[in-house]
Amino acid sequence: MSNENVSTYNPTLETLFSHVSVREYSDRPVEEETLNLILKAACSGSTMGNMQLFSIVVTRDEAMKAKLAPFHFNQPMATSAPVILTFCADFRRFNQYCRFRNANTEAYSNLQSYHWAVTDALIAAQNACVAAEALGLGFVWLGTITYNVDKFVEALQLPQHVIPVARIPMGYPVKKPALTQKLPVETFVHQEVYRDYDEQRIDECYREKENSEETANILKENPDCDNLAQVFTKHRYTQPDNEHFAQVLKETLERQGFTV
Amino acid sequence: MSNENVSTYNPTLETLFSHVSVREYSDRPVEEETLNLILKAACSGSTMGNMQLFSIVVTRDEAMKAKLAPFHFNQPMATSAPVILTFCADFRRFNQYCRFRNANTEAYSNLQSYHWAVTDALIAAQNACVAAEALGLGFVWLGTITYNVDKFVEALQLPQHVIPVARIPMGYPVKKPALTQKLPVETFVHQEVYRDYDEQRIDECYREKENSEETANILKENPDCDNLAQVFTKHRYTQPDNEHFAQVLKETLERQGFTV
Repeated sequence: MSNENVSTYNPTLETLFSHVSVREYSDRPVEEETLNLILKAACSGSTMGNMQLFSIVVTRDEAMKAKLAPFHFNQPMATSAPVILTFCADFRRFNQYCRFRNANTEAYSNLQSYHWAVTDALIAAQNACVAAEALGLGFVWLGTITYNVDKFVEALQLPQHVIPVARIPMGYPVKKPALTQKLPVETFVHQEVYRDYDEQRIDECYREKENSEETANILKENPDCDNLAQVFTKHRYTQPDNEHFAQVLKETLERQGFTV
Repeated sequence: MSNENVSTYNPTLETLFSHVSVREYSDRPVEEETLNLILKAACSGSTMGNMQLFSIVVTRDEAMKAKLAPFHFNQPMATSAPVILTFCADFRRFNQYCRFRNANTEAYSNLQSYHWAVTDALIAAQNACVAAEALGLGFVWLGTITYNVDKFVEALQLPQHVIPVARIPMGYPVKKPALTQKLPVETFVHQEVYRDYDEQRIDECYREKENSEETANILKENPDCDNLAQVFTKHRYTQPDNEHFAQVLKETLERQGFTV
């Protein structure tokens, strides 16, 4: 589906196609000017009804990084990166605007409103990521942000109607890692209606990945698993863990003022 | 906070900074090769644990556009765009992979898993948008996707664990609109901890927007409103509407297999 010849002439496509997660950062600080360009890019994206329902908390203080690290289960990127950006779904600012303009402040305390804010926050986050890579920085999304969401709310002092949805360490890479193996693009694309995945199609989509050296190495480290799927469900993201963190997330949404 | 001199030397930043929503498309079709580059960009982004929890449904058939238009309340972009991309949070494919590999298929039927898939889908969507603008296309996010989510599920034949989260018409613009007025970047950025918005800060953040010609025109059309906040809460996104659509969204999540 791709056309490498065309893409080489478009620097933005090159940036997008060459994305890799970077987990090791050099000592080079992120210049104020560079950070400001990334923040400007974050604030330039699409937004629901032009309400701009997001906020960005910038973490650079070493003590703050150390305080938050346990909530990421001490993943090294949570302390080694010079800058960490936390993107929050934020209806607080808009609700405060309503409050000080004698408008209804109860209209946006529901799951629908929460979804709008999540969308705005993630558009902002991905724009920041594209800008960062275009400026030579590397980053990685910390999936653990949604696990201990209650603890991030407390430590970052997030008020009602603010929920962190992405936490992204950024810095100049020590070295650019090789591209991660992805499933073929065709895997994800459906024409007009969804075409479901039967066993034959799953075999086709996962063939290359299952036959890779990376998968072979993972299976060597997990001798109790016959395949990659079992590594995920038995070890990486287990049902009891997921259900526990789902409950934490639900309670935090309610506590922050979004009726679920 | 911005530095225009630096940004002019980086074409990717230029693309991000010059984003505008485009609602009118020329008759020029979107070439297959161009669409494939956009889809490749969508599939090149970050993803939770490299699970790639999203799908993209491509709408080009006129009959399908017409069928879906009422669920967007007949917004003209829902039928006038040559291509519409629907980005779905998708745990179906991964669950099918688990099923055919004798792994637990019940681990990802919760709110936590849903959030991972939403994140993957929105990263893919924003990557597609950046690629589209870099290739000269215009687009607009249809906020109405989350309103009638049940009807999109049915019409696009989405199975269990698939929820549409973004629907984005794309095409070559008739003309590039002027930049939309946004709040200042400083509005969104917090250092280390959240700095709440009191009345003075709200006044500062919204001053330029409230004094703009665009706002004056909106208020002329809404003579029962004293300010922009009231236009939103009384007319654009009202509490009864939001609460109704929140209920539809919650019921759809449950019906699609995510326990809320």
